[in-house]
Amino acid sequence: MNAIDTMLQHRSIREFADQPVAKETLDQILAAACNGSTMGGMQLFSIIVTQDKEMMRKMAPAHFNQPIATNAPLILTFCADFHRFDRYCECRNTPTDAYHNLQAYQWAVTDALIAAQNACVAAESLGLGICWLGTITYNTPQFIDILQLPKHVIPVACIPMGYPAHPDTPLTPKISNSTLIHHETYREYSEEEINTAYATMEQAPNNVNMVKENHFHNLAEDWVLRRYKKEDNEYFSDLLQKTITEQGF
Amino acid sequence: MNAIDTMLQHRSIREFADQPVAKETLDQILAAACNGSTMGGMQLFSIIVTQDKEMMRKMAPAHFNQPIATNAPLILTFCADFHRFDRYCECRNTPTDAYHNLQAYQWAVTDALIAAQNACVAAESLGLGICWLGTITYNTPQFIDILQLPKHVIPVACIPMGYPAHPDTPLTPKISNSTLIHHETYREYSEEEINTAYATMEQAPNNVNMVKENHFHNLAEDWVLRRYKKEDNEYFSDLLQKTITEQGF
Repeated sequence: MNAIDTMLQHRSIREFADQPVAKETLDQILAAACNGSTMGGMQLFSIIVTQDKEMMRKMAPAHFNQPIATNAPLILTFCADFHRFDRYCECRNTPTDAYHNLQAYQWAVTDALIAAQNACVAAESLGLGICWLGTITYNTPQFIDILQLPKHVIPVACIPMGYPAHPDTPLTPKISNSTLIHHETYREYSEEEINTAYATMEQAPNNVNMVKENHFHNLAEDWVLRRYKKEDNEYFSDLLQKTITEQGF
Repeated sequence: MNAIDTMLQHRSIREFADQPVAKETLDQILAAACNGSTMGGMQLFSIIVTQDKEMMRKMAPAHFNQPIATNAPLILTFCADFHRFDRYCECRNTPTDAYHNLQAYQWAVTDALIAAQNACVAAESLGLGICWLGTITYNTPQFIDILQLPKHVIPVACIPMGYPAHPDTPLTPKISNSTLIHHETYREYSEEEINTAYATMEQAPNNVNMVKENHFHNLAEDWVLRRYKKEDNEYFSDLLQKTITEQGF
């Protein structure tokens, strides 16, 4: 499918048809993933392909047992990876201590996410559905253990994919593009613009129901007090910081 | 153009034809950028569109005066942005202190990079060339100042784009896909696999010349001792960490 049409028709798919992903389809997705931009040509990422249901079941608890973590035929986990580059340097008797820092992490995260988004666009252009699992950066120690990631490798994106069970899944309501875009410099948002920008999302039936069920006043409370709570975020931030340090960045 | 063909034909373009990017072309690129996956529907990114040459000249020193920082007709800077979400919460009397941490930064970086890569694929599918500028995460304080970014906003990707001056620019040599991909678990790299994986890049004429000119033994030394040096990486890591803290993450 045409690239722009593919991206404009993106929606998250969390249920998949009982249809495997053919090897040649997977190969096309991976080829697109591997051909994105990369910091200085260093290609600081790796992709772990999960197709074994037993491996999915092992990872599921770290994904908080979301059904999508086991019901997809295929999961791609994208890792920020300086380990392979370290191995290259070792083989050329070159020191590798220049990359034990935040810039190295930022570059490798960027390379991994470029690859991940290419994979998503490729998959969607071939008729597959995808959904990012934010849990991958929460429970990094468990994923590192299960996927046997060496030092200097951290998982940063996890994308189950497969043919949609419901191909007519509607688009997700979003903030209007003009609100996300600034020309030349950042302009401050007036209360009026904020109200207009979030109205579509506040009025979406799913969100209206969620706010009602949880006895909140508005969508902001549902996000802040239930979905992405301070204590959880702080707990998982400490864990991620510990992983970044322990993995040698 | 077809999505997968677009991605397989990606190469970095650093010189542009004297041809402006039409408003409707830019709008299509921005629409694709704004429609990617996003953490919990929060859309934690903003895009700064730079078309004013005076703005490009102001930012150029922070991009180390690379010619591409001023010779492109268009630059898109993608920011990890929790500020707009904070404003929304303020307007709904909801506390915003749940997102002053590393997870919030990681989510917003991810949202911004998904948007950035969508913009790249969209631009390339329309015949434009692109090139990521890694310098955006080096000199964050200067970009924050020039682009007038408020607290809780950090630039993480910067992509000049335009019609290629040399449309026949060759593909960049890369590591073979099979080296970047692991099945089920990460497999360690043997010295033989490393040698094979990096051979294409080591033998590329550009790299051969660069190694020779700088009197290095191999490409690893050129990367580690000249292009991405320890002292620079550590200096810019401290600066980025300072920005992340000062911007309220």
